[in-house]
Amino acid sequence: MTDIRWDHDRETRTGIPEVVFGPGKTSAHLRSLFENEGELRIASRLSDEQMGVLDGLATIHAEARVAVRNPRPVRNVPAVPVLTAGTADIPVALEAAAILTAMGVPTTRHFDVGVAGIHRLQAVLPELQSARVCIVVAGMDGALPAVVAGLLRAPVIGVPTSVGTGVAQGGTVALNTMLASCSPGLAVVNIDSGFGAACLALKILGSGSPD
Amino acid sequence: MTDIRWDHDRETRTGIPEVVFGPGKTSAHLRSLFENEGELRIASRLSDEQMGVLDGLATIHAEARVAVRNPRPVRNVPAVPVLTAGTADIPVALEAAAILTAMGVPTTRHFDVGVAGIHRLQAVLPELQSARVCIVVAGMDGALPAVVAGLLRAPVIGVPTSVGTGVAQGGTVALNTMLASCSPGLAVVNIDSGFGAACLALKILGSGSPD
Amino acid sequence: MTDIRWDHDRETRTGIPEVVFGPGKTSAHLRSLFENEGELRIASRLSDEQMGVLDGLATIHAEARVAVRNPRPVRNVPAVPVLTAGTADIPVALEAAAILTAMGVPTTRHFDVGVAGIHRLQAVLPELQSARVCIVVAGMDGALPAVVAGLLRAPVIGVPTSVGTGVAQGGTVALNTMLASCSPGLAVVNIDSGFGAACLALKILGSGSPD
Amino acid sequence: MTDIRWDHDRETRTGIPEVVFGPGKTSAHLRSLFENEGELRIASRLSDEQMGVLDGLATIHAEARVAVRNPRPVRNVPAVPVLTAGTADIPVALEAAAILTAMGVPTTRHFDVGVAGIHRLQAVLPELQSARVCIVVAGMDGALPAVVAGLLRAPVIGVPTSVGTGVAQGGTVALNTMLASCSPGLAVVNIDSGFGAACLALKILGSGSPD
Amino acid sequence: MTDIRWDHDRETRTGIPEVVFGPGKTSAHLRSLFENEGELRIASRLSDEQMGVLDGLATIHAEARVAVRNPRPVRNVPAVPVLTAGTADIPVALEAAAILTAMGVPTTRHFDVGVAGIHRLQAVLPELQSARVCIVVAGMDGALPAVVAGLLRAPVIGVPTSVGTGVAQGGTVALNTMLASCSPGLAVVNIDSGFGAACLALKILGSGSPD
Amino acid sequence: MTDIRWDHDRETRTGIPEVVFGPGKTSAHLRSLFENEGELRIASRLSDEQMGVLDGLATIHAEARVAVRNPRPVRNVPAVPVLTAGTADIPVALEAAAILTAMGVPTTRHFDVGVAGIHRLQAVLPELQSARVCIVVAGMDGALPAVVAGLLRAPVIGVPTSVGTGVAQGGTVALNTMLASCSPGLAVVNIDSGFGAACLALKILGSGSPD
Amino acid sequence: MTDIRWDHDRETRTGIPEVVFGPGKTSAHLRSLFENEGELRIASRLSDEQMGVLDGLATIHAEARVAVRNPRPVRNVPAVPVLTAGTADIPVALEAAAILTAMGVPTTRHFDVGVAGIHRLQAVLPELQSARVCIVVAGMDGALPAVVAGLLRAPVIGVPTSVGTGVAQGGTVALNTMLASCSPGLAVVNIDSGFGAACLALKILGSGSPD
Amino acid sequence: MTDIRWDHDRETRTGIPEVVFGPGKTSAHLRSLFENEGELRIASRLSDEQMGVLDGLATIHAEARVAVRNPRPVRNVPAVPVLTAGTADIPVALEAAAILTAMGVPTTRHFDVGVAGIHRLQAVLPELQSARVCIVVAGMDGALPAVVAGLLRAPVIGVPTSVGTGVAQGGTVALNTMLASCSPGLAVVNIDSGFGAACLALKILGSGSPD
Repeated sequence: MTDIRWDHDRETRTGIPEVVFGPGKTSAHLRSLFENEGELRIASRLSDEQMGVLDGLATIHAEARVAVRNPRPVRNVPAVPVLTAGTADIPVALEAAAILTAMGVPTTRHFDVGVAGIHRLQAVLPELQSARVCIVVAGMDGALPAVVAGLLRAPVIGVPTSVGTGVAQGGTVALNTMLASCSPGLAVVNIDSGFGAACLALKILGSGSPD
Repeated sequence: MTDIRWDHDRETRTGIPEVVFGPGKTSAHLRSLFENEGELRIASRLSDEQMGVLDGLATIHAEARVAVRNPRPVRNVPAVPVLTAGTADIPVALEAAAILTAMGVPTTRHFDVGVAGIHRLQAVLPELQSARVCIVVAGMDGALPAVVAGLLRAPVIGVPTSVGTGVAQGGTVALNTMLASCSPGLAVVNIDSGFGAACLALKILGSGSPD
Repeated sequence: MTDIRWDHDRETRTGIPEVVFGPGKTSAHLRSLFENEGELRIASRLSDEQMGVLDGLATIHAEARVAVRNPRPVRNVPAVPVLTAGTADIPVALEAAAILTAMGVPTTRHFDVGVAGIHRLQAVLPELQSARVCIVVAGMDGALPAVVAGLLRAPVIGVPTSVGTGVAQGGTVALNTMLASCSPGLAVVNIDSGFGAACLALKILGSGSPD
Repeated sequence: MTDIRWDHDRETRTGIPEVVFGPGKTSAHLRSLFENEGELRIASRLSDEQMGVLDGLATIHAEARVAVRNPRPVRNVPAVPVLTAGTADIPVALEAAAILTAMGVPTTRHFDVGVAGIHRLQAVLPELQSARVCIVVAGMDGALPAVVAGLLRAPVIGVPTSVGTGVAQGGTVALNTMLASCSPGLAVVNIDSGFGAACLALKILGSGSPD
Repeated sequence: MTDIRWDHDRETRTGIPEVVFGPGKTSAHLRSLFENEGELRIASRLSDEQMGVLDGLATIHAEARVAVRNPRPVRNVPAVPVLTAGTADIPVALEAAAILTAMGVPTTRHFDVGVAGIHRLQAVLPELQSARVCIVVAGMDGALPAVVAGLLRAPVIGVPTSVGTGVAQGGTVALNTMLASCSPGLAVVNIDSGFGAACLALKILGSGSPD
Repeated sequence: MTDIRWDHDRETRTGIPEVVFGPGKTSAHLRSLFENEGELRIASRLSDEQMGVLDGLATIHAEARVAVRNPRPVRNVPAVPVLTAGTADIPVALEAAAILTAMGVPTTRHFDVGVAGIHRLQAVLPELQSARVCIVVAGMDGALPAVVAGLLRAPVIGVPTSVGTGVAQGGTVALNTMLASCSPGLAVVNIDSGFGAACLALKILGSGSPD
Repeated sequence: MTDIRWDHDRETRTGIPEVVFGPGKTSAHLRSLFENEGELRIASRLSDEQMGVLDGLATIHAEARVAVRNPRPVRNVPAVPVLTAGTADIPVALEAAAILTAMGVPTTRHFDVGVAGIHRLQAVLPELQSARVCIVVAGMDGALPAVVAGLLRAPVIGVPTSVGTGVAQGGTVALNTMLASCSPGLAVVNIDSGFGAACLALKILGSGSPD
Repeated sequence: MTDIRWDHDRETRTGIPEVVFGPGKTSAHLRSLFENEGELRIASRLSDEQMGVLDGLATIHAEARVAVRNPRPVRNVPAVPVLTAGTADIPVALEAAAILTAMGVPTTRHFDVGVAGIHRLQAVLPELQSARVCIVVAGMDGALPAVVAGLLRAPVIGVPTSVGTGVAQGGTVALNTMLASCSPGLAVVNIDSGFGAACLALKILGSGSPD
């Protein structure tokens, strides 16, 4: 087993603990990381087999492909709304939500509210308006985050997803739509990166107070 | 002067007359084409110099870069709404409108109604709902046509524009957003092609009746 | 099972009912959507397993990967010709045809009439000339829709397909050929989107009458 | 002069006032927008000629290509550090700084601290550690924002710039480096978008308090 | 003046003489190359200034941007037809024709016979059918060479051009259409390379006989 | 079984018979095409299963993935040399060779003579110099066809292959290298298209004589 | 079995022996190459099956997918440090290390020292400063080689890897970051090419002495 | 004038002095940097105007667009051969040569020895074989560095150039050809980066001795 250099100091420095990226990790390695008592452990992008290995050692969020051990207690911050444009975007949204939850941040979830039927967004708008930060996940044309950002005072984090057909395959269309959005103040992260969105939300929540 | 093969039969075959594409045409050539008496002549993508050459021979739509001689009489069809998301998209919209007008089709114009302030679209929605076809021009994130297509029974023609900054430069982002749109039934034409949108609108208007 | 927000109002607003996109839907979810009595249900891009789940509940168009329950009665509109350039383009053409049929619109089918042997197109031209809208599906060089659009008064919808070799893999070449076509008035939809073409044809057919 | 629809309500809705995008605006149009008494006006991406037109009506930030009239009074928030990797990135950084200043937010500036001489960053680190949000502008390899984000608790906004040579021309390399960064919690905006970075910083500063 | 290594042996080895590529050549250098008595000299892609420098020393084909000194006598081979789809493609066609003429090969020219009006091609077909090789130049959708190749026994050389709008800008669409063509046996050369097409035609004409 | 329109006339028109493209063809369809007595049948890009179906009905070239029935008698033309740069390029070379053989054209084969050890090419040069046309297959950097074209009077057909690592994956690098080659007179066909190279060679061989 | 032309002379000419590239090689071919007595044999990119075939004939470096027979004796040169930014980059680093070892060059290995926690690099810096050449392997943002090159006098070879998520998939982002690096004097090789890095290191080590 | 942070320590750390990148530097700034007495100053990518500003203060290498003040004395190292494939590649080669000369390293120059006439390379091969490092500059197909690397024991640095036509425009084709080269041990730097090649050559020359 290759010896990994754990960045123990990362959370002190940045407010974000090291999160284990599943692909390429052996079962033995994953198990050794999670057998640690008392310390928070989060792993993402886990395969079915890897989730099996950690079953019993950690809470498994199967649709999100995330495992968590020793989550932080719930913090007293406003819930972070996590929206998706379609149903195929849900696993990415759940990855973001699982990591926020592990870090003690409550979330609310509003899935399948994309711009093809814009009235569905109106229904959830009041709740969004009281959030301190909002995560919006969208594939295909990636237009939803711009519409939300044009309606809120809070920062919106757009997460493009790779699930799409034709020109949208791989997520570059959704990514570029978000970067090119006319709605000022939209933060964009990498394609499918529920993890990146959660970390950015954590930093934003932490930036307003001594915390 | 190179001898050009005029496709005289095109309008009979397709309902669309030959339109002269300006770039590369010499002054002598343009003038000879427009000195023809009585027949409809339309030229697009004209340079300042070319518009000067045709001044007096044709009606010049300067912002649209279009010249028209012997336009068709106004037809009894519902006006075609032409929308833009931003102000930079207006020249492309005017190219579409000038060609429709030359062909006898009335238009209405609604500019600067993009998704960053979606309430502006609500104000014009009733008028759009009585149209038989609608043209929506958008650069940057290109999200407006999808939103309009999700609200109307009539076919919507999306025209991406090349005016944009960063990743949006050149218009590929707007183009792909329209192609990847979750709003079913959106027709897409080439980047900056007000001409293509006008021709498609003409064909759609012609397809419902003996006309 | 994640709770999906069904856009019940979509058909009233746009003339197009919600169509279920297969990928990512669970068997339970698909079945619950199709167990609904009396209402039209259409699903597309179904896997073999998903078509098995719906067998008995819906009519399965296996080559088109489409399932339909409670189709609309046949409408009194002219048949929509659906053409393909090659044999590999047929499944996409059948997706368009199945959705049109489900909506009560008759279709005729003319497959394998690509430009490498242009005389094959001549044989079907008379029938095309009486259509109100025409769908042309083509991969590889994607040249057929432009040729057809140069011969007809009706609007032509070009559908690029992803089946191709070398530079044509993925369908971008066919897509760009259609967008760059010199034949004015060609409507383009996303790669492989028989669904998009069918919806656009429906909107065009609906735009000429009170319907 | 085309009639523009001003989104008067934008600042109430989103905390960000409408900012005039220079390209394509006529002198008359720009002047009319800035002759307004008492209201904040900001324009960006101005040409030399446009800055001449507004001279006398507004404060001109020439290197930033920004004009401001009626700036907001200075707010009691911690200064936002604006960093650049190289000297060619400075105009984009100044665009961000000028917009923040117009909105009453103080800034500090640390230019030319790129990763090729990483000790230069160490010198400014203590000041960065007390910020609530930090803007880092970088072209070429775009590596600086990731390094900064790995050292701070506050959210970092990465702005890729288009100034670069060879493969870096246009800014896509810097953009993708930031999106692909292993430093979690980096917010990315469009290439050269000092404007986008300023708006996002405003939203983040506003999200922690009733403000 | 940098010392250039002239590849004197090239024509013996390959049947193609060295052709001077204009861009970057100084006036002094060009003049020295053309002051040579008796030997064939061809230069291509010349600027207006460079054509001025060679005026008097060589025959200038201004639209083709080619200069020729000491052309070869006319050979007894069938004329090579050079076709274009549009008028913007003509300069590239003339570059090919000028180089063939300089090498003693007669040409015929058929311009503006693109697929949007396919009947124009029918008119020139009989002449094409007696050619030993045929050059077809096309920008935009680049569909013409495939149609011609599907009608002839002789090899067809497709030359994509960079003149196009929207997605066709730069010529990649036309290039890929030709490479992906379903018409077997189409030879493709670089974008705008009338020179490459002429050289390939020379090699094909030379390959059938001791010549 | 979908009814295919066979282009019976293709060989008379173009000198190239219709070749069946394997992907997507059913076993029944393939078998019916090959059960035809006496007529030439060629199929390419066959899967293992498809080759099994045709075993007994046709000669199977397994490495080339080609099946042939009723090949033409050997013609009295000089053999066509088929070269490859590496060993991974061999299947594409064999596809070209199998189709030429089926059409009665003899071939010689020289594999693994790439530019990293350029002396290997010297050894086969004399034989190449007597050919009327030469096919050179190369992946990775795709440099071999240019070197060969710089040494021969006969036309050289470059075939890029998709087998490569890193930036060379998919064959675009090899394709572009060939198109950009400084060796004038190189004909390029689609990536992996041994078929296209064979057809072009047939047309070139046919163009020099009444044949 | 196709007859391969072995470039026996390569090591004398270039200092680098021929290395067998696994993909596409049959078991029989591989075995015959390795049954040779006494001569050095190296194969890379081997599949599990191919490593099984060579087991017993050669030393198998399973994680590196390299097999070696008859390695060279250890040379008296300073060890080459091989670094990786993350754990997913390790197989590429091991390919480089295995080939260097086979050639008698000692290596040291420092894995998982990427820029998100830059202090980890400080720890290994003293050792790096005594190296004559250094190999740095990095995927995702590919920023590590530039940071190392900014700290050392020795040449640094950057190897981008294809393992990455979102925009980083395939390795082009890491590749371009290295090419665009502001740290002067960074040598870049193809994506995932541990082999290329090892060969370049060998050439650099050989260039300073009669060796 | 913006205050620049000079990286005084760079040469001690890396063996490479800071080189001023011209674009964006004001005349005042450039002059102040070069008025420094006694210290080496190098600037690259200078405009005509910038070279005029430094005339008298520094030695101007006009074709290379480089200015040098206080060059280092000539070192006792073997000359570095600098080759180009064509004449358009010469300015990039001269940038590399001027920087090496400024650092005291002698160079030899061999221009216009590209692969279309490979015998020209044979003539200079003996001299190349005694070099410790070799720089090869090539645009268009970029094939020359691979051929040279296949013939030498010394490391070869490939520099792609942006001068090219059609697909080769911008230099990506030449870049990718070099990265994908089958000649092992080729070091690649950014497009047009004579500067990068010179720095890498300096590091390689420095790596073999205490120096």
